Amino acid sequence: MARQERAVRTRNALIESAAELFDRDGFETASLSTISARAGVSNGALHFHFASKAALAGAVCEAAAQRLGRITGGGGEQADGALQILIDASHALLRGFSHDVVLRAGFDLGDSPESTGAGEDLHRRWQGWVEAVFAQADREGTLAGDVSAQDAALAVVAAVAGFEALGGQDPQWLSPATLTRFWGLLLPRLAEKSVLDRLVASGTASRAG
Amino acid sequence: MARQERAVRTRNALIESAAELFDRDGFETASLSTISARAGVSNGALHFHFASKAALAGAVCEAAAQRLGRITGGGGEQADGALQILIDASHALLRGFSHDVVLRAGFDLGDSPESTGAGEDLHRRWQGWVEAVFAQADREGTLAGDVSAQDAALAVVAAVAGFEALGGQDPQWLSPATLTRFWGLLLPRLAEKSVLDRLVASGTASRAG
Repeated sequence: MARQERAVRTRNALIESAAELFDRDGFETASLSTISARAGVSNGALHFHFASKAALAGAVCEAAAQRLGRITGGGGEQADGALQILIDASHALLRGFSHDVVLRAGFDLGDSPESTGAGEDLHRRWQGWVEAVFAQADREGTLAGDVSAQDAALAVVAAVAGFEALGGQDPQWLSPATLTRFWGLLLPRLAEKSVLDRLVASGTASRAG
Repeated sequence: MARQERAVRTRNALIESAAELFDRDGFETASLSTISARAGVSNGALHFHFASKAALAGAVCEAAAQRLGRITGGGGEQADGALQILIDASHALLRGFSHDVVLRAGFDLGDSPESTGAGEDLHRRWQGWVEAVFAQADREGTLAGDVSAQDAALAVVAAVAGFEALGGQDPQWLSPATLTRFWGLLLPRLAEKSVLDRLVASGTASRAG
């Protein structure tokens, strides 16, 4: 039992270390020996857990997908309506891109041609979720009548990908203030007039803070 | 004269080849010998023109900056107003990201920490231009009264960066149809009502084609 716990801890340390080095040096450049050294384990231990760098990249993607699942899982917030759920999730995702190297590396690995097959494309999973939320807003009647749910999803997915890409150079792009300004601009176009005043562009988590 | 022409042609071939390999393999991974081989010149010729890989990256950025300058230079279109100039330039930029590897590599090099100092950050130059155009629309009175030029610029710069990032995986994100849908969604929020009907979301170049 203790041995199993230790194995889980080693595996997680390797995933974290791999994410850090994929993020810093890129998938192609990051070396397995640097990854194991940074995780504080031997090369042998790394190879016990992961057969190849691609397998390690797959595990990073899987861990990132779980985190994305928690961000989009929401739950309990249905009372706020679909648009507020989306605003809140976008804030959580950008916080994740700032602070969580596993989430960031997982999204990036999907973009990298060298790591193809490492895991599913998280951008595509996020996009599918955003489309479903706008379709829900449409059914609720909280999406403005003359707005297509698909076009709204396209704009939000593109902007979030842009915040992520530009944030690598200048962290200001990932700040809550930036995303709040984006929603402040977009919501009067997207939301049905009757719900607009209830929506919190800075996210409902910001009210608690 | 003929010798000088040949030198210019060799230099351009090296810039094109470097852009292709930076784009495909990344700055760190691309090797000088592959770059010279692809350009059909000797290693010696490469070193005659460029002292280092960083110098080559600098030349790629400079060539990309010139192309961006042509895209944002516009000229002669002032009659269409600032917002139409911006729409047209965004279409030209996304066409560039699709078809012009020098432009694409130049933008990417600015993002890559390894190539720091290789050239100016083209995203930042594009951003400065977009901000100036929205400020111009504000002065013209074609920007909607309740929209801040800065927030509008932020949304457009983020979305364009997102189209570029997502387009690396799925070319659909760089298609004129995608960008037209984005402008179709955003313009009713950004443009003063009186000019909205005159704006062509697909770009004025699309009317000629």
